[in-house]
Amino acid sequence: MKIALVQTPGLLNNIPGAFVHMATQAAEAKSNGADILLLPEMYLSGYNIGPQAARAQSITVEGLAPAQEIAKTHNIALVFGYPERVGDNVANSAVLIGPDGSILLNYRKSHLFGDLDRAMFKAIGTEFPIAELHGYKIGLLVCYDIEFPEPARRLALAGADILLIPTAQMEPYEQVAKHVIPARAYENQLYVAYANHSGNDDGLSYIGLSSICGPDGAILAAAGKTETMLYATCNKPHQAAVRAADPLLADRRPSLYGPLGATSRLD
Amino acid sequence: MKIALVQTPGLLNNIPGAFVHMATQAAEAKSNGADILLLPEMYLSGYNIGPQAARAQSITVEGLAPAQEIAKTHNIALVFGYPERVGDNVANSAVLIGPDGSILLNYRKSHLFGDLDRAMFKAIGTEFPIAELHGYKIGLLVCYDIEFPEPARRLALAGADILLIPTAQMEPYEQVAKHVIPARAYENQLYVAYANHSGNDDGLSYIGLSSICGPDGAILAAAGKTETMLYATCNKPHQAAVRAADPLLADRRPSLYGPLGATSRLD
Repeated sequence: MKIALVQTPGLLNNIPGAFVHMATQAAEAKSNGADILLLPEMYLSGYNIGPQAARAQSITVEGLAPAQEIAKTHNIALVFGYPERVGDNVANSAVLIGPDGSILLNYRKSHLFGDLDRAMFKAIGTEFPIAELHGYKIGLLVCYDIEFPEPARRLALAGADILLIPTAQMEPYEQVAKHVIPARAYENQLYVAYANHSGNDDGLSYIGLSSICGPDGAILAAAGKTETMLYATCNKPHQAAVRAADPLLADRRPSLYGPLGATSRLD
Repeated sequence: MKIALVQTPGLLNNIPGAFVHMATQAAEAKSNGADILLLPEMYLSGYNIGPQAARAQSITVEGLAPAQEIAKTHNIALVFGYPERVGDNVANSAVLIGPDGSILLNYRKSHLFGDLDRAMFKAIGTEFPIAELHGYKIGLLVCYDIEFPEPARRLALAGADILLIPTAQMEPYEQVAKHVIPARAYENQLYVAYANHSGNDDGLSYIGLSSICGPDGAILAAAGKTETMLYATCNKPHQAAVRAADPLLADRRPSLYGPLGATSRLD
């Protein structure tokens, strides 16, 4: 399975325009042989748009119909972030749409980042769902979620082969893009793709540095600071060989890990 | 607190020689203002010495008296790996000796690496103890332990400020040295020092790449492939500021993490 990843500033407060942009990106990715296209966090509306705009533009899954149409037209799977209306609240969500236009996963960011996220979103997500596509089990996380080892670990223990992560990572968090992403791939023996914004259109200075990493932690494709598209191909026999050579998941010692479920300020 | 780290091939099957080498390294580290000297995994005997030699040279904590004397003489704390005799078994252990010569921590590697470790050692360790030195809470791990996020997480949740990790990391595991070490530092907001062997005296090709990372994931000092000594200074106000700016430990959502204590082949 070939992954395409778009690092882009996207469009601000222009969801119809974002669908047009998405269609051009999907066409380009498909023409280069990609099976799935990964776009950044809150791609549909822009990220740092403030609570009023996030609420005003929030949509339910039904509002994703134009993206389902794009997936079907170009026969390519899509993953992107959007403001999801959930009752009276807005979740920072990511969706996986299959190449037939069906919605395969809808994940709601479970770890909110500081006042920035908390002003716009509620942490409604409590599940880490997995869907299968082209023989790979895929999980989604959003931005800050991947800075914690636990969500990725949960997905790996549940059988995930690939993590796809829309993000909106700004200065000065280069260590996350440079080191945490390949570390998550290595420690869980997963493919990990991390799609960031570029530029500073919404008032934040994005670091870019999107990447796709392999199950041995190898950096298969990496962006600089500017708008770009990355590609990398997942290889199931390679992933199986990595896992057989060093059984990192089987070598865990859970009985020693004690209270990893201990208190936090949020639970 | 200033950390000195020695990346060295060390000596093979020559414990008296290793104590002499340790004394020269301690003197040099102290003359450069270090408060603690970190040496590699199985420093005292060499790492890849095989089960017979590991057993023949294994010692109880009492056998560490010459190192206690070195610590006292040079008024510097020491951390190094050694083959520990535990009843009929040999543990791959690391010890922290205070600058007054007292034994502050003795940790037994809990995650054994492949047939190499399992031929020589038993995974006797079930605890992740912490000791205080110069106002910092210090935890020890050994090599493969740090490739799992859980042991470092346990130590961080128990209040550790610094992780000191003797290792014997060989080709092709450069991703661990380059990415997993700064990721552990970042995600747990700890100082992490990782002291590797260099060279190939014992038949393994060591990658070097020892490093000392800060609580924001910054790489404070990093070695190449050859023998060297690194220094970095821990700064408590900086660590507190990092933790206050981004409360990564408090932002955890343990109630969502589910069965991180689920089955493995070892428990």
